[in-house]
Amino acid sequence: MSELAFLDLIRKDLERVEELLQDKPPEQHEAIKVALDHLIGGGGKRLRPALALLSTYLCGAEPDQAIYAAAAAEMLHTATLIHDDLIDGSLLRRGVETLNASWPPGATVLTGDYVFARAAHLITRANNIRLVQRFAETLMVICNGEVRQMFNGRDANSVRKEYEQRIFAKTASLIALAAETGAILAQADETLTNALRTYGERLGLAFQVVDDVLDYVANEEILGKPVGSDLRQGLLTLPALLFLEQEPEHPIFGQYLNQNPSDKLVAEAVQVVATSPAIQRSLDIARDYAEQATDALAPFPASPYRAALCDLAEFTVSRHF
Amino acid sequence: MSELAFLDLIRKDLERVEELLQDKPPEQHEAIKVALDHLIGGGGKRLRPALALLSTYLCGAEPDQAIYAAAAAEMLHTATLIHDDLIDGSLLRRGVETLNASWPPGATVLTGDYVFARAAHLITRANNIRLVQRFAETLMVICNGEVRQMFNGRDANSVRKEYEQRIFAKTASLIALAAETGAILAQADETLTNALRTYGERLGLAFQVVDDVLDYVANEEILGKPVGSDLRQGLLTLPALLFLEQEPEHPIFGQYLNQNPSDKLVAEAVQVVATSPAIQRSLDIARDYAEQATDALAPFPASPYRAALCDLAEFTVSRHF
Repeated sequence: MSELAFLDLIRKDLERVEELLQDKPPEQHEAIKVALDHLIGGGGKRLRPALALLSTYLCGAEPDQAIYAAAAAEMLHTATLIHDDLIDGSLLRRGVETLNASWPPGATVLTGDYVFARAAHLITRANNIRLVQRFAETLMVICNGEVRQMFNGRDANSVRKEYEQRIFAKTASLIALAAETGAILAQADETLTNALRTYGERLGLAFQVVDDVLDYVANEEILGKPVGSDLRQGLLTLPALLFLEQEPEHPIFGQYLNQNPSDKLVAEAVQVVATSPAIQRSLDIARDYAEQATDALAPFPASPYRAALCDLAEFTVSRHF
Repeated sequence: MSELAFLDLIRKDLERVEELLQDKPPEQHEAIKVALDHLIGGGGKRLRPALALLSTYLCGAEPDQAIYAAAAAEMLHTATLIHDDLIDGSLLRRGVETLNASWPPGATVLTGDYVFARAAHLITRANNIRLVQRFAETLMVICNGEVRQMFNGRDANSVRKEYEQRIFAKTASLIALAAETGAILAQADETLTNALRTYGERLGLAFQVVDDVLDYVANEEILGKPVGSDLRQGLLTLPALLFLEQEPEHPIFGQYLNQNPSDKLVAEAVQVVATSPAIQRSLDIARDYAEQATDALAPFPASPYRAALCDLAEFTVSRHF
């Protein structure tokens, strides 16, 4: 994301965030250092830090506090990914090996826990107890959502509403918190706080829908992981759900849902969805979410920061990675 | 621990802590509710809450803040146990099934994460950013120590010093934080803060040594889990280390260290240590730690709360469970 023009507004702060993320406490075990270099150095879009910083300038809050919140949001995101990849058995993310691909499960669990603690420590440095509280609440929402998904499993009756709840918990909740950061730090009034939170929620939903589309249609090299991983894990995301709404009797999905599907069957199901109108319909829905995000910013007067948040919403739905 | 006389000083507060621990946020997934009832309701000694409350009264801090810190310490402890039991493959704790005994690993990881978030949320309610920071730092120490232990593995050369570092990270660090809570909330001076932290560290070391002895000699029914679990997991604790100092060439340990030991071999090794002088020597060391804990409280004038903390140190080394 670093080549995007609107990031120029916060480039210096993003560099400070990067320093915080790369920081290595001396007592850290060598294995954790290597793992974090690998995971944090592995890139990622730094969407959450960018949101926290832009919302900080938009609300006139203190950037010196915000950089800690920005780094904490990325660190918390990283911690959840470590455990997610372990649970899903994913071997690649952003083109690099996941931790669980080469480490035993126990060490992966503990390193994820360590990264949670790092995130908690970073957020305390923003010196705002309300913000720490919102971080804790958000992690509860994320974990709750994942437990729900796990106990529901592969389910053709999982409908649009449930899908939205799921991606809200998984993705939009933390993106909303990042977007809300400036309002919390500035102690902005409820209208502005809610505006930024709604912006972040809608942006987060758009972001995840696009991710779910890319899991069907992306170029694997650019995506940095194999396509089709959701279906392989038994996860029906929006493209598959929309496809099934149109073709509930499709023979391949009938087989997919009624047995432990082979790799070949998964690949066929991916192909069927990827070439169906469900892809464009999903992208249209993502675009709706992104527009709702932009609309939510109406209470703020026009400014380069508001414009940057709108650009970010546009980027979210037009990206290919 | 609830029948102990010195707990009368804080019984009302402990009841409020219990309410916080049993609290069920409405959005909590049903499976997590059941799991937490099982884990938190399963008892435990509530040592950490008791310490946080006694240190609060000792320092003249506000109990209304301290109950959140007390509950947070117990919740954080519970979260680490969920992941530990998963990693160790333990099936019983405190006489009840562990979560991983009946749940898939993924759900267990996520529930542990959820409990970390609950702990973080509880600690923010004490409304003291320094305390949140110390909680985050302590979780880093715990995870770091466990990763170190994991990468070192079964190692006869693991000496006393390393053992102390290990049990400091695993147990004493959080017990020290609980003991330090009152000083942090009262913004006590450095002498008193360090006194309570040292008390907690020494108490924590004593506590873990006794735990490690009980893993060899306890009545399984009272202990609530099978004895010998450390050796079964390849973990050499103080009794085994002291035994090996005396009898480095013992044939059973030679076999134990040089191969993947059978259940029968583990049982024999447990029996050999349990009936050796290493048990009494370990208990003597625990008693030394407990005395150091009591001595550390010297900067505080005599009071019922200081006396209670001394009683707690005595209880720690004389308990049988």
